[in-house]
Amino acid sequence: MPDATVDAAALGAWYQQARRATESLAVPLGPEDCQAQSMPDASPTKWHLAHTSWFFDTFVLQPHAHGYRTPNERYTYLYNSYYESVGERVPRPDRGLMTRPTLEQVEEYRRHVDRHVSALLAEADTATLATVAPLIELGVHHEQQHQELIVTDVKHLLAQNPLAFPYLERESKPELAEKPAPLRWVGFAGGITPIGHAVDRGFHFDNEEPRHARLLGPFQLASRLVTSGEYLEFMTDGGYGRPELWLSDGWAMLQTQRWSAPLYWEQCDGRWLHYTLAGKHPVAASEPVTHVSYYEADAFARWAGARLAGEDEWELAAHEHPSRGTFLESGRLHPAPCTEPAGAGTLQQMLGDAWEWTHSAYSAYPGYRPPTGALGEYNGKFMCSQLVLRGGSCATPESHVRTTYRNFFHPDKRWQFSGIRLAKDA
Amino acid sequence: MPDATVDAAALGAWYQQARRATESLAVPLGPEDCQAQSMPDASPTKWHLAHTSWFFDTFVLQPHAHGYRTPNERYTYLYNSYYESVGERVPRPDRGLMTRPTLEQVEEYRRHVDRHVSALLAEADTATLATVAPLIELGVHHEQQHQELIVTDVKHLLAQNPLAFPYLERESKPELAEKPAPLRWVGFAGGITPIGHAVDRGFHFDNEEPRHARLLGPFQLASRLVTSGEYLEFMTDGGYGRPELWLSDGWAMLQTQRWSAPLYWEQCDGRWLHYTLAGKHPVAASEPVTHVSYYEADAFARWAGARLAGEDEWELAAHEHPSRGTFLESGRLHPAPCTEPAGAGTLQQMLGDAWEWTHSAYSAYPGYRPPTGALGEYNGKFMCSQLVLRGGSCATPESHVRTTYRNFFHPDKRWQFSGIRLAKDA
Amino acid sequence: MPDATVDAAALGAWYQQARRATESLAVPLGPEDCQAQSMPDASPTKWHLAHTSWFFDTFVLQPHAHGYRTPNERYTYLYNSYYESVGERVPRPDRGLMTRPTLEQVEEYRRHVDRHVSALLAEADTATLATVAPLIELGVHHEQQHQELIVTDVKHLLAQNPLAFPYLERESKPELAEKPAPLRWVGFAGGITPIGHAVDRGFHFDNEEPRHARLLGPFQLASRLVTSGEYLEFMTDGGYGRPELWLSDGWAMLQTQRWSAPLYWEQCDGRWLHYTLAGKHPVAASEPVTHVSYYEADAFARWAGARLAGEDEWELAAHEHPSRGTFLESGRLHPAPCTEPAGAGTLQQMLGDAWEWTHSAYSAYPGYRPPTGALGEYNGKFMCSQLVLRGGSCATPESHVRTTYRNFFHPDKRWQFSGIRLAKDA
Amino acid sequence: MPDATVDAAALGAWYQQARRATESLAVPLGPEDCQAQSMPDASPTKWHLAHTSWFFDTFVLQPHAHGYRTPNERYTYLYNSYYESVGERVPRPDRGLMTRPTLEQVEEYRRHVDRHVSALLAEADTATLATVAPLIELGVHHEQQHQELIVTDVKHLLAQNPLAFPYLERESKPELAEKPAPLRWVGFAGGITPIGHAVDRGFHFDNEEPRHARLLGPFQLASRLVTSGEYLEFMTDGGYGRPELWLSDGWAMLQTQRWSAPLYWEQCDGRWLHYTLAGKHPVAASEPVTHVSYYEADAFARWAGARLAGEDEWELAAHEHPSRGTFLESGRLHPAPCTEPAGAGTLQQMLGDAWEWTHSAYSAYPGYRPPTGALGEYNGKFMCSQLVLRGGSCATPESHVRTTYRNFFHPDKRWQFSGIRLAKDA
Repeated sequence: MPDATVDAAALGAWYQQARRATESLAVPLGPEDCQAQSMPDASPTKWHLAHTSWFFDTFVLQPHAHGYRTPNERYTYLYNSYYESVGERVPRPDRGLMTRPTLEQVEEYRRHVDRHVSALLAEADTATLATVAPLIELGVHHEQQHQELIVTDVKHLLAQNPLAFPYLERESKPELAEKPAPLRWVGFAGGITPIGHAVDRGFHFDNEEPRHARLLGPFQLASRLVTSGEYLEFMTDGGYGRPELWLSDGWAMLQTQRWSAPLYWEQCDGRWLHYTLAGKHPVAASEPVTHVSYYEADAFARWAGARLAGEDEWELAAHEHPSRGTFLESGRLHPAPCTEPAGAGTLQQMLGDAWEWTHSAYSAYPGYRPPTGALGEYNGKFMCSQLVLRGGSCATPESHVRTTYRNFFHPDKRWQFSGIRLAKDA
Repeated sequence: MPDATVDAAALGAWYQQARRATESLAVPLGPEDCQAQSMPDASPTKWHLAHTSWFFDTFVLQPHAHGYRTPNERYTYLYNSYYESVGERVPRPDRGLMTRPTLEQVEEYRRHVDRHVSALLAEADTATLATVAPLIELGVHHEQQHQELIVTDVKHLLAQNPLAFPYLERESKPELAEKPAPLRWVGFAGGITPIGHAVDRGFHFDNEEPRHARLLGPFQLASRLVTSGEYLEFMTDGGYGRPELWLSDGWAMLQTQRWSAPLYWEQCDGRWLHYTLAGKHPVAASEPVTHVSYYEADAFARWAGARLAGEDEWELAAHEHPSRGTFLESGRLHPAPCTEPAGAGTLQQMLGDAWEWTHSAYSAYPGYRPPTGALGEYNGKFMCSQLVLRGGSCATPESHVRTTYRNFFHPDKRWQFSGIRLAKDA
Repeated sequence: MPDATVDAAALGAWYQQARRATESLAVPLGPEDCQAQSMPDASPTKWHLAHTSWFFDTFVLQPHAHGYRTPNERYTYLYNSYYESVGERVPRPDRGLMTRPTLEQVEEYRRHVDRHVSALLAEADTATLATVAPLIELGVHHEQQHQELIVTDVKHLLAQNPLAFPYLERESKPELAEKPAPLRWVGFAGGITPIGHAVDRGFHFDNEEPRHARLLGPFQLASRLVTSGEYLEFMTDGGYGRPELWLSDGWAMLQTQRWSAPLYWEQCDGRWLHYTLAGKHPVAASEPVTHVSYYEADAFARWAGARLAGEDEWELAAHEHPSRGTFLESGRLHPAPCTEPAGAGTLQQMLGDAWEWTHSAYSAYPGYRPPTGALGEYNGKFMCSQLVLRGGSCATPESHVRTTYRNFFHPDKRWQFSGIRLAKDA
Repeated sequence: MPDATVDAAALGAWYQQARRATESLAVPLGPEDCQAQSMPDASPTKWHLAHTSWFFDTFVLQPHAHGYRTPNERYTYLYNSYYESVGERVPRPDRGLMTRPTLEQVEEYRRHVDRHVSALLAEADTATLATVAPLIELGVHHEQQHQELIVTDVKHLLAQNPLAFPYLERESKPELAEKPAPLRWVGFAGGITPIGHAVDRGFHFDNEEPRHARLLGPFQLASRLVTSGEYLEFMTDGGYGRPELWLSDGWAMLQTQRWSAPLYWEQCDGRWLHYTLAGKHPVAASEPVTHVSYYEADAFARWAGARLAGEDEWELAAHEHPSRGTFLESGRLHPAPCTEPAGAGTLQQMLGDAWEWTHSAYSAYPGYRPPTGALGEYNGKFMCSQLVLRGGSCATPESHVRTTYRNFFHPDKRWQFSGIRLAKDA
């Protein structure tokens, strides 16, 4: 996405491409699949399709498109996610009860918004363009976030179905015999390090700012993600039954929720299966483990005699080794094994495959100021009780993620493709 | 429905008619409407469509149709409602998460079952017919119960939608100016009275048996149902704020649930509206009040210096005055005002319009024995903590209800068309 | 207790005796024991001591003792149980948080009330006496109810303590080898039967009125209560794992609460122990089973090929055989085995030992009218969703119970001495 | 407390002094006050008295006192707080149900432990002394933590009592007319700063280690704590009704809990009262506001155009200005106003008066290793989802707190004396 002077045509093309990408994710789904909400954390696909349009409707078209009228005044109420400044909204757990507007009507809403954004870009003068281009850009990145959520929310929904229908039509054969690359430790000297995104270097979210210096000690990072095979060793070693490995909150959660394996795993005739978007399959030992909570990632690391990285350590390392793995565009929707040994001193799978839990609480960088207006609610008001994850996953659009990108979830959440990379003091 | 010798053709025609009636209720609904579940008490329309087929599949075809194969072994799990003897099942609150089988596939399941029931009836010998005819008959009455539930569950679902879409396409103009017939008291002498259904006189549920004698004192019944206008007087008189009018459990419920009017009512610019299946409309004072809990019915009666009837009193009275009002077949899906004065000593609206809360706990008649096998779970295991309602409602198929018919709900339930008829000691 | 003309001295003596009896129950308890509340259903002993005094303070002294002043205006708030007409009150689950007034201060409150009740009785003219005597009489019966609750609530509290301290000092040796009397069936012809208490025949609660006629079929009652040994057979036969034996609500309760035995039972090294007020002891097979819910009583009866009695059946039978067993005054605080065979056609243990669950929902007798004023809340407002128990228990004062006495609890409650007597159709 | 060579006599005297201090806190309380538990977060005083003894029993006497026998094996179960390695324990919310051992028996337990600790110190050889001295020292600091908890837990308990009994006998007259010192801003340059406690410089908890360097930007701190008067301005300005001031979790908490003021505040006839340990009094505008959650502290800071400090900023500042205010020893049990103007560039009330919420998530310092064995559970396993508070309060023993001391609570907790100091970027 261009900065400085705005290339309206390029912006428009990029916008359209993002919108089509979202819609392609709904293609394997029927109206029923797009309707249901499997838990308060997840939203119906239909809601995602509508809400991402609401974003452009509310923040771009209504304030900036001359003579524009929203197709339905009530959409502001129906499709607002969490913007208090925009007004009241449907309670999150009730999103699955809005059977109307129908999927078709929501698709029509998408087309309506797309037509008007196109028209706005075509007709806008330079001043308007300078105003709306950053909003459209933000909206496209917002759209990409919801692409990832469609994938994870659909996975959660279909996993509730006793019939374990696959979302992907193609046959996915997990290569059970593959061996993962050996895990090596890569050392970093630390020192005074810039952290965060520079203001003028392309798109980034407000929470990546301001760029500031930190003083880091020397540390080591594992060359790749923890595999399911390694995680099974932890399980076999009684990992879920040894309180000394767990944070107090994690141990309580494990007991009340009866956790004994990652989400979507189940034992069947002595072997472990898991629900994937290609259906229910044996767990492949070589694949990165995903769908673990922070508590599980932390307990695993303690068991392994290691720890999780700080988000600053991760960022420093990723800046040097921005290695890329599996993204949404691959269509795999599952993390891929890392089988080729890492070059000496290099890191693998830093971007893509699995979000990596860090031990860093999600909080404001020194000097952080949220934007003014409703968009100030985008990131800042969540800076409490959540932990930062880094690197993106197999459900993240490749162009969406950066080495400075900060994702965040509560420590008990497991429905994202969240995995583990080990760290150590030097 | 014939007894003694079975007329297979008539039974088949009646079966087909009931099945079509169910399907016609889904016509105004899209796949999304049929998918969603608005609360644990309610089920998705798609589930009703499937479960009623499962009933014939499980209790008629699998045991009795030679060579029959169920289209999907898993349906036994997916569409079992509460039959422990049939095995495990999807937890009730999760029925809305089964996005697949799709609505289309469920419709195909219905056709599959219908074809095989028709074939069975066409080919069965006399002995088989004697066995399956009562099961099919039970299944048709079961189907009718779910027709009513589709109506009430859809109403609850659509009422959650902030857009208050109507289910009925036609314009329904509540006749606000109409005056209800005057309420008169009709006296009954009581005495030794037969209660319950005779074994050999046509279809009835097990819980209507055995017919037995009761000794009743003299009593009076109101000639018609309580109207919304009368209920509004109770509200205006502070009915929801006077603990002395309420049962202890009801007062607690009122406070925790913040009840201040019947379900679906809301105050808007000083007047009361309610959601009906024809959309949101002003409450018509002449219409019977519905969607009240037992607690509200009981408090209203106390306020009015009266009481609710016992189910035996009601049955005695209905036997003499089986007056009929609005049923499902009218397509109105809303109770109708009773405007014509009752003849001296006669009762109006006894059958249809609104289920009438009685003060009788739902329990077994003396000598009651549930049927053997899974169908013994149909009624008997619910005989605790519920109250009997009598008479059927505007959502009940007319042929479904009888003067001996016992419906039952927990005292806090409000989503059925439940209303109030007053009684008094003589 | 006298009616007609009031013998003030006798009434005063009876009052004092009841008050002393309550206090004697607190003797084995320290201030801590009297303070704690183990669940919302149970109350602290200190609260019982205060509330029973509040009753006389509020309903006798304040309205009728000339110049009387309550020692603390706030007691009305602190010690009101559930009388809405008397005003706001401490929420039931918070009774254990009132550490002050202290036990000593509550004891002083008791003495204060006692002094003034005595003075009132000594000085009252005939008219006043005629007014206050029925209130004092009601208060004494109320006091007796709380005597029973002190026993059951203390048992629940001490049972929570891992050290299982006994309440009774004496050693109680359960006679494990004893054999219960054989269970015999006693037949009753039924017919038109008077049920309820006659208005003018001594004290009774409002809910025992009005006496009215019922028509009963012939039935049989078991000659004695079900024993723990018989209940163990039900358990051994898989009783807690067979849904066909249970009411639907009971089966759900059993699963969520993980019931597998009566309350207070635990298996230890292959044998069953239970906490009694004399400490933890082996379950004696010959003793009546107690601390079962209605669901368990009902499931046991079904398993045994029998049923529970109706409250009218029970009353008819008790009227003929008012046999007496163990009461509070015995100091045993545990039901006693019935080892001597019943005479032919006679019933044992009808009064005392264990409250007997009936299948009758607690509701108003035909023509019932609650008293006016706050005391109208005593019984009437609970007439929903509870079941009647009859006969009294080993924790009931002997003079408190009658053949017409109606106790009532929700079907899931187990902390009372509630047991089982079987019934059958003739 | 000495390090290097152990002065057993001094250690013993210090131990005894700490034990007596704990007991003196229970003097105004009766057995009932010591028994009750007002919420799961709080514990009964009796439990605190027992648990602190259990600590010495378990970690000092049982492993190190030759021939020692614990007075009751079950105490290990009864009085374990959260040490999984020590075994099972009474669930936290059930601590108030243990009416026995009685308060007297717990006092005897204390004396038993004290005698044996004294004997151990008197008789121990140098090697034993070197082992037990650090454990006793830890135990004394642990004892001090529970002294503070007794104060805050008793305050919470007595505040539930409708009679609002004071804990302190003396009359406390809040000086309503006093004016607080003006709030000034004190600047700090930041830079590379050592944070944490040096290993060899006297007692500190494991979570204060290791001392390490951080890079801080320039910042400003307010010269004193926020007063109740300033907080009232926030309230009057609609602070509790403006979502833009609140973290998302805080806004949700405010709505579900109906927060509209700090804990213990209530509006009465137009003025604000609050429950203090000296009874219910008008809020004094000059006193530091306490009993606010992190959410409230954060919202206030945002409203004031400021922010909360980081724990590192706070520590740097406190190191330069370790000003002292009110501690437990004052007996005031309430924060005191700061009325004298601060000297230029100096900070007031840094230690004592109120714990100061920082925006720092409670987590491990780089290189942190918990101790081995059960004591490793002391601090480390709570390093998630809590926030650091600094500085101690009016309920903290003066010798307990340090500039490196890290307290931690979940962001919604309000029953501690938690207050607000504002910070700003330079």
